[in-house]
Amino acid sequence: MNKRLLSIGLAVLVSAGYSLSAFAQAKPETLVKQRQSAMVLQGKYFGPLGGMAQGKVPYDQAVVARNAGYLDALSRMAWDGFNPNTKDVKSAALPAVYSDTAKFKEAQDHFISEASKLAAVSKSGDEAAVKAQIGAVGKTCGGCHENFREKQ
Amino acid sequence: MNKRLLSIGLAVLVSAGYSLSAFAQAKPETLVKQRQSAMVLQGKYFGPLGGMAQGKVPYDQAVVARNAGYLDALSRMAWDGFNPNTKDVKSAALPAVYSDTAKFKEAQDHFISEASKLAAVSKSGDEAAVKAQIGAVGKTCGGCHENFREKQ
Repeated sequence: MNKRLLSIGLAVLVSAGYSLSAFAQAKPETLVKQRQSAMVLQGKYFGPLGGMAQGKVPYDQAVVARNAGYLDALSRMAWDGFNPNTKDVKSAALPAVYSDTAKFKEAQDHFISEASKLAAVSKSGDEAAVKAQIGAVGKTCGGCHENFREKQ
Repeated sequence: MNKRLLSIGLAVLVSAGYSLSAFAQAKPETLVKQRQSAMVLQGKYFGPLGGMAQGKVPYDQAVVARNAGYLDALSRMAWDGFNPNTKDVKSAALPAVYSDTAKFKEAQDHFISEASKLAAVSKSGDEAAVKAQIGAVGKTCGGCHENFREKQ
């Protein structure tokens, strides 16, 4: 392995605020930023699908398959960011995130499961089935936001 | 399709700042936020791999495979956010992003290609090969940051 080249990459990370020694214990502010980043990207890639399901955006099979694949990954990325040590960091997360953990976990799992199904269905090219599954994913977004996120 | 449920999901998106009518023309500030979110998550999932390649974090095959899969997706998410209409939004992007577009595209493609190889190699469980490929990905992070991002 070329250690000099790896060092360049790691130097980039460190300069971006990632302390190598702190991987196992990221700062609460970093965890919040990371989980919010996952939500931002879920919005980016779910948005057009929602528009397609509602007929407001032309249906595009290639975009659906790509976005659904991304969402399958993105749906799994936010949750370890809701560490109890982030409780006092300013965000839209409601206290229920930290007190009703079983229900919160259930809502996460539901979203992950429906997003995973969407990724599978999106490969079929069956437009009606895809649109129905987009609806199912949208419902799970709401399921979490309604109970665990401040109204915006 | 259950239109009422889909509407809930879309209402969540709209309340989060995603205008359905504006999908094709996201605001410059939104594009910057989205591309920065992709970078934050690249850091989240590459960081531990860099630590493993340097021997500073214990090698964990399950984490490697998961993170490499995420990075394969994340490596593709930032680039449409560097739209020329974001030129005047405050960020660390250097003017070269918008003037030396061919070289910038080449750097993006190089990163995507190496991240994709890492996802493939990570399934092999060959620790030495994985570590070498982590180094190759790290190099491509630096290749872009050195020329297209303000020194931090």
